[in-house]
Amino acid sequence: MFSMQAIGYVKSPYKQAREVPKGLGAKHEAEGVLEIFPEFELGLTDIEGFSHLFVIWVFDRSERFELLGTPPSDNRPHGVFATRSPRRPNPIGLTVVELLRREGSRLHVRGVDMLDGTPILDLKPYLSSVPPEQLRRGWLAEAEARA
Amino acid sequence: MFSMQAIGYVKSPYKQAREVPKGLGAKHEAEGVLEIFPEFELGLTDIEGFSHLFVIWVFDRSERFELLGTPPSDNRPHGVFATRSPRRPNPIGLTVVELLRREGSRLHVRGVDMLDGTPILDLKPYLSSVPPEQLRRGWLAEAEARA
Repeated sequence: MFSMQAIGYVKSPYKQAREVPKGLGAKHEAEGVLEIFPEFELGLTDIEGFSHLFVIWVFDRSERFELLGTPPSDNRPHGVFATRSPRRPNPIGLTVVELLRREGSRLHVRGVDMLDGTPILDLKPYLSSVPPEQLRRGWLAEAEARA
Repeated sequence: MFSMQAIGYVKSPYKQAREVPKGLGAKHEAEGVLEIFPEFELGLTDIEGFSHLFVIWVFDRSERFELLGTPPSDNRPHGVFATRSPRRPNPIGLTVVELLRREGSRLHVRGVDMLDGTPILDLKPYLSSVPPEQLRRGWLAEAEARA
């Protein structure tokens, strides 16, 4: 077992899961703040040079996992590791956000899909993208084609 | 505190950290296997439709963290959250791999930069990329320009 601790919390406009946009074509353009604890502020040095960040966080209001589930963007079940379901063996979330500005240990970002108060485990710079022409998107592309 | 458990292990050609390509222009094209425990195999259903996956894993051989450090790709120190340093408050790694094929609960992938035996916490489908023209890459772009 590995013990992880919050390095801060997300300030988000979403108080409940049903408020977060979901399903095919859902856009995540909400603004929020990554409030990092002051004791970790030194670790943010030079982060403002990056336009996008990976945020690794905890689905802290998810209570169990299911290996097979039907996501909001399809009417067919898929394996949890082929979806972004909150009901995961380790309840870890991953979101790419755009960094708008930094105020000390507060990072103002766009693209939050986390609930208000979500614990943050880590931040990493977004360094490169897979070219879209190399991406295959499995069941999601099929669901989009059917829609 | 949040307790996380391994869902499997990475089989990698790298036995020690010094073998992993590092620094400016390092390429990660090594092949490896994500060996997921059989009890989680159902969670892999339909994953083979995706060309790329996010792998969330543990730097299990990293013993401490430092908030400021000098990465292999630069000669100047940066905050840990602006780098991919293993010495993080939560020793979580994130790697994008290309999925080559699935054999039951074994995923053959390209692009591993983890050590052999690294514990895996989660897998997620890679669904979309930030367009390169929208990316700013801070100190890394500056280090590349100086090189």
